[in-house]
Amino acid sequence: MTTDTRALVTRFWATANARDWPAFAALLHPELLYRVPQTRERVRGREAFVDFFATWPGDWTAQVRTLIAEGSQAVTEIEFLVDGQAMTGISFFECEAGQVRTVIDHWPEPYEPPPRVCVHVERE
Amino acid sequence: MTTDTRALVTRFWATANARDWPAFAALLHPELLYRVPQTRERVRGREAFVDFFATWPGDWTAQVRTLIAEGSQAVTEIEFLVDGQAMTGISFFECEAGQVRTVIDHWPEPYEPPPRVCVHVERE
Repeated sequence: MTTDTRALVTRFWATANARDWPAFAALLHPELLYRVPQTRERVRGREAFVDFFATWPGDWTAQVRTLIAEGSQAVTEIEFLVDGQAMTGISFFECEAGQVRTVIDHWPEPYEPPPRVCVHVERE
Repeated sequence: MTTDTRALVTRFWATANARDWPAFAALLHPELLYRVPQTRERVRGREAFVDFFATWPGDWTAQVRTLIAEGSQAVTEIEFLVDGQAMTGISFFECEAGQVRTVIDHWPEPYEPPPRVCVHVERE
């Protein structure tokens, strides 16, 4: 099952990058739920979710840097490259019957750290 | 190996929440590397990392909401509760010889979404 989940999520990003929307849609559960907890945004259903990806502006590519799959769950960390800019995206996947059922996205942005008590913290 | 990684990461958060620093330290590789890409912060070595946790201000608890482990890798999504406030933390773990070798933390903050082309995006 872990192997299937890994293959499914790998194909999710490959078909999205290829703009192969029929192949992308075939990976998705009809009742797919997409959520962004940071913005409280939500997209419901396969067609709406394909449209969400297909209408994303700019010349973007998602490069998968980390993929961890276990049972019906997986997470990817992607470098999302759009018009020369790079963002980090973290997506949690829940799969069901060989299709993607839930996607929860996080987009962590750079920020200035607060003062630290620990003296061992360095900056890269 | 996935089972060992899952047990190790579960124990990581349990001993941290219990402030059992000797037990916490025993889970860590001497050359542990901790990174926060958002702030470019880095902590190197077991002792420094234990100090980083032990000196964290406030009465905090990490509640593990998601844990996905595969081979020597794992990710946790935690609700980090500190003095009545809740933050989401996402930690990627790389393990080696039964110890935690690398931890990469992300702290995604709420933000206002940009305008969307897709008309199917709702707000929760």
